[in-house]
Amino acid sequence: MSKKIFFITTNKGKYFSAKRVLKKYGITVIQKEINIPEPRGNIEEIAIQKAKYAYKIVRKPLIVMDAGFFIDSLNGFPMMFTNFVLETIGIQGILKLAQRKNRSCEFREILCYCDGLRKKPRLFKRVVEGKLSRKPKGKVKSYHWSKLAYIFVPKGEIKTMAEMTEKEFTNFRRKVDAGSHWEQFSKFYSQKS
Amino acid sequence: MSKKIFFITTNKGKYFSAKRVLKKYGITVIQKEINIPEPRGNIEEIAIQKAKYAYKIVRKPLIVMDAGFFIDSLNGFPMMFTNFVLETIGIQGILKLAQRKNRSCEFREILCYCDGLRKKPRLFKRVVEGKLSRKPKGKVKSYHWSKLAYIFVPKGEIKTMAEMTEKEFTNFRRKVDAGSHWEQFSKFYSQKS
Repeated sequence: MSKKIFFITTNKGKYFSAKRVLKKYGITVIQKEINIPEPRGNIEEIAIQKAKYAYKIVRKPLIVMDAGFFIDSLNGFPMMFTNFVLETIGIQGILKLAQRKNRSCEFREILCYCDGLRKKPRLFKRVVEGKLSRKPKGKVKSYHWSKLAYIFVPKGEIKTMAEMTEKEFTNFRRKVDAGSHWEQFSKFYSQKS
Repeated sequence: MSKKIFFITTNKGKYFSAKRVLKKYGITVIQKEINIPEPRGNIEEIAIQKAKYAYKIVRKPLIVMDAGFFIDSLNGFPMMFTNFVLETIGIQGILKLAQRKNRSCEFREILCYCDGLRKKPRLFKRVVEGKLSRKPKGKVKSYHWSKLAYIFVPKGEIKTMAEMTEKEFTNFRRKVDAGSHWEQFSKFYSQKS
């Protein structure tokens, strides 16, 4: 019998990502949309508070995900405000701000598991390192994480995510899924009695 | 007998501003620091939600203020994320993003009054229009609103706020205080039985 987990998200893409990885571990993901007020804090704190908030409503074991994009030379900007920044100054704004030399940046994703208000929530983390390209390249498709795919060149790659062919992207994704927050969670949860 | 109002803020500068203007109307401002979770939404929505949250704790007539800085050519960026943006990309980052020609921008401040959970909160608004200077000028002092004073040239002025002498700044402030959210609120509140 397969285990079930509620995934609190309004983002279909994130739901499909979770489903894809957790299926391998025999875990069924049930998407649930809840409008959660945005807490203050870093992405870890945000994930924890969202998970607790959702638990009060759902009252079943659940996960929430929070993510951010961090540019080293800009003190981490835009962090948890990535969507807002993409909607206002956009990719072009980010490239204007980027330094010529230090172009390091990373995606950070936090998965928070909560199965009770008095129990400590569990965190699982993934960091995907890379560099900003000089200009936007490629074409963003529905399976990409974000418009940042136009300018994000993952570590060890030479193309932006959006430049990769579907096959190249699948390979890249397989690499970053290995040992990821999703896999860590799956192992933890499938062993849980 | 003077009327009292609670002002929920952790910002001493805002408290002194309120005190200065409201004193003229015989209103005594009592600062109260409450750690309020940052709600989602535009500055009006944020102010309303913060006021309601604070009212649940204070249970006395109170005001909260929320503010943002809006740059026309950047779709309003950085809006309610001004502090975060100043702490990461800073003044220099904002100038990098600014367009050569359209440099219009404005401060928006919202005052929200709440005196009961079932009563509709009242909003009072001030907009201070201006332009971004080409480079940072002057010296920011404690009585300035924000580091943006280095690059904000108010409408009808030729200096950045930080370039103004103390006397010039006092004159400018008198101008923008006239008819402001503070004055609107003072009139409303002092007439309230």
